[in-house]
Amino acid sequence: MDGAEFRRRGKEMIGYVADYLENIQERRVFPTVEPGYLHQLIPDHAPQEGEKWEDLFKDIERVIMPGVTHWNHPQFHAYFPSATSYPAICADILSDAIGCLGFTWASSPACTELEVVMMDWLAKLLSLPEQFLSGGKGGGVIQGSAGEATLVALLAARHKAVHDYRQTHPGVKDDEDVAVKLVAYCSDNAHVSAERAGLLGHVKIVKLPTDDNNSLRGDILQEAINKDKAMGHIPCFVCATLGTTNCCAFDNIKELGPICEKEGVWMHIDAAYAGSAFICPEYRYLLDGVEHAMSFDFNPHKWLLVNFDCSAMWLKDSSYLIDAFNVDAEFLKTGRNGIKKTMPDFRHWQLSFSRRFRSLKLWFVLRLYGVRALQENIRKHIALAREFEGLVVKDGRFEIVAEVIMGLVCFRMKGPNEPNKKLLELIIKDGRIHLVASKIRATYCIRFCVVANQTDSNDIKYAWSVIAELATRIINENRQ
Amino acid sequence: MDGAEFRRRGKEMIGYVADYLENIQERRVFPTVEPGYLHQLIPDHAPQEGEKWEDLFKDIERVIMPGVTHWNHPQFHAYFPSATSYPAICADILSDAIGCLGFTWASSPACTELEVVMMDWLAKLLSLPEQFLSGGKGGGVIQGSAGEATLVALLAARHKAVHDYRQTHPGVKDDEDVAVKLVAYCSDNAHVSAERAGLLGHVKIVKLPTDDNNSLRGDILQEAINKDKAMGHIPCFVCATLGTTNCCAFDNIKELGPICEKEGVWMHIDAAYAGSAFICPEYRYLLDGVEHAMSFDFNPHKWLLVNFDCSAMWLKDSSYLIDAFNVDAEFLKTGRNGIKKTMPDFRHWQLSFSRRFRSLKLWFVLRLYGVRALQENIRKHIALAREFEGLVVKDGRFEIVAEVIMGLVCFRMKGPNEPNKKLLELIIKDGRIHLVASKIRATYCIRFCVVANQTDSNDIKYAWSVIAELATRIINENRQ
Repeated sequence: MDGAEFRRRGKEMIGYVADYLENIQERRVFPTVEPGYLHQLIPDHAPQEGEKWEDLFKDIERVIMPGVTHWNHPQFHAYFPSATSYPAICADILSDAIGCLGFTWASSPACTELEVVMMDWLAKLLSLPEQFLSGGKGGGVIQGSAGEATLVALLAARHKAVHDYRQTHPGVKDDEDVAVKLVAYCSDNAHVSAERAGLLGHVKIVKLPTDDNNSLRGDILQEAINKDKAMGHIPCFVCATLGTTNCCAFDNIKELGPICEKEGVWMHIDAAYAGSAFICPEYRYLLDGVEHAMSFDFNPHKWLLVNFDCSAMWLKDSSYLIDAFNVDAEFLKTGRNGIKKTMPDFRHWQLSFSRRFRSLKLWFVLRLYGVRALQENIRKHIALAREFEGLVVKDGRFEIVAEVIMGLVCFRMKGPNEPNKKLLELIIKDGRIHLVASKIRATYCIRFCVVANQTDSNDIKYAWSVIAELATRIINENRQ
Repeated sequence: MDGAEFRRRGKEMIGYVADYLENIQERRVFPTVEPGYLHQLIPDHAPQEGEKWEDLFKDIERVIMPGVTHWNHPQFHAYFPSATSYPAICADILSDAIGCLGFTWASSPACTELEVVMMDWLAKLLSLPEQFLSGGKGGGVIQGSAGEATLVALLAARHKAVHDYRQTHPGVKDDEDVAVKLVAYCSDNAHVSAERAGLLGHVKIVKLPTDDNNSLRGDILQEAINKDKAMGHIPCFVCATLGTTNCCAFDNIKELGPICEKEGVWMHIDAAYAGSAFICPEYRYLLDGVEHAMSFDFNPHKWLLVNFDCSAMWLKDSSYLIDAFNVDAEFLKTGRNGIKKTMPDFRHWQLSFSRRFRSLKLWFVLRLYGVRALQENIRKHIALAREFEGLVVKDGRFEIVAEVIMGLVCFRMKGPNEPNKKLLELIIKDGRIHLVASKIRATYCIRFCVVANQTDSNDIKYAWSVIAELATRIINENRQ
């Protein structure tokens, strides 16, 4: 494909995806294909000679679309949102064409510098404390996912803890002698990625019980720290969540933070989903206590209209991270020397070495929407969730199982778990709407999240009518 | 931006990037900006109201382009290639619009299934042993980078080693008691990401010396393993490199492999750059010995015209990885049950949880180019590197410091390192071409890599004329 053909084909693709997104409600939100469907539709090896665009293009509808779960469908209410926006798609085209890798400043200065400024823009939108902004010891960086950010934070915390311990215990011979004593904490509602960070970073993660609002409280953490210290362990890390995946609960960071500071424990805040809402002044109070955190992360790729991947992470002091990750080779020293003081080399801030020009997406979205429109989008989603909550509450057969604070509603039919499992199975099989399950301790419930940009009040009413209809069917079946 | 505006703006962007790539040689390959240039050109906060497209669009030239190192410039000869192709850009537009996350099969079946088939296509192109294909215990997965693949492999190897040791030593109480004894190996030419994987995975990495061809040999590995075992350590992992970053050296996997098998050590092969060349039958011999590997990785995003990120990793037995990574929650069990046996849940195969629909890029590139054109591209690059090598050899002032096997030429002026450092500084300041340094043990040299799709014989001759001219200047200055 030469430039001339790309001008045609690229434009064709732009038209196709605009059509796709504009008419997505005409598709079935969740596919009916069976596992293994795709390999039957295409050859089992790559073609020797290049094929015609037309043949590939028509295969999008024949091969791909029948197997797509449509996250942008107005009746997709599963998981959390995965942002898709036109400005972000335009930015990605530019990023792909530039095709630079931003592992050092010199490898493409604009890639590093726009990221620094965009992370400052975002930090200001969230009213993050000054220490998280660039210019001093702190700063922001784009990670691939919130789980990656948790792992990065844990590794930095681990490095700091080993270093701190050896400073005060000069007799210790080996880092590993310290490392095996390390212990970290998260709530029993935390995302699986917190547990996984412990697994991968080889730090024991203790899941702590939460209160009636599914929130991790200070007294529980203090008790755990005291107990672990008494056993000779070294508490080093807390992953606090603002807006858990299972029920959008908020850990009490105003209580956890001072304890972490007192105990020399690194508090990381994972606000993967809810973090975007903090750009609205009326929700910013949920972030109070962030001043105690060593690191904070949320996903603009969830709820801020920036396409995946763009997870925004800030550190109060990046030196712990850089020290943990820094390994250098000759080819990286080329270009300009002595620039480390003024501009970060982001390869030391992340797990991978290479990185795409992802800040372009942030720049396009923040400028073309503007702050007000992004706030309106958050408010609209939360209002729709409240509307859905109202419909649930009005139906005496159902109950809400967790306070509705953001765009997520966790609900269930009153009584045992089993009929609820049946209800969800029926909803998925029915295929008019798509939802997934959740569990809050032993209570099985159904998650309803406002996800797509297009979802409106009519979609909410429709979704509820489907759920109520299928619930009636189950209740009638049980009676018989 | 609504659908109608996106149709206009998206097409404008397609035209812009086609112009950019077609006329890239008119730009300076390496920018002249100073660190901190960008924040002076844009406001220090996001706009309250959305801006006009026109204002953003003109800022691409005003703000971004002055700070871009142009990796697609025909005179860019630094690092290794970062692939950019029109078909991959088209695929990314589609991937962005679908916007699904493929953490489970149910989260978007096409995302998982196309990846399985594309990785099989690629495996067949490279004539990988049957065990690496899907259907049995093995299979392929797209990672973000080769460094990520190394870390993933190390973590799986670590898990396996601890498990194996505890099987044969039932008295061992704690995994950590085993883990601290683990040791891993790579050559002294390996990429910094191998060392970093050890650092992040908390396994001691030993860098082993290489032979006169910069290749890690079997006897050196065997000796190291014997020594470590005698000291009570547990050798668990070897990262062998095919095509090192510093000089494109090839470790002797035909010797290393049988030793690893005998010793129960996990051999991972990192062929990040050179791997793409193995689609050419005449270079496939370099991969002989891969049958001994537990895992293998190369980057289609380097030399196979698939845009970043697309690092292709295969495992002979994915269960070690899945066991090391598997942590599950209720919301992930939704959709279809019992599908694990037929289709992988790729979240267990990688560090992060969420993942983009990246296999579309592979599909578009493999079908629209076809195998033959991809082979021609590799052959063209290698021929151009040979042409450059010839020019170096003809000039008695210079020497080649490592055998030229792929598209990389490591060269230097004969004599001490210092004038070579000066030469590279001058080349970068001059700005007509762009190169970076390397080191082979204590020998400083300059790396010349054929990177851009557009680079042709005239560009090679031109690059050499610039280098020769600047070398003459340095030699004359030294004489004075």
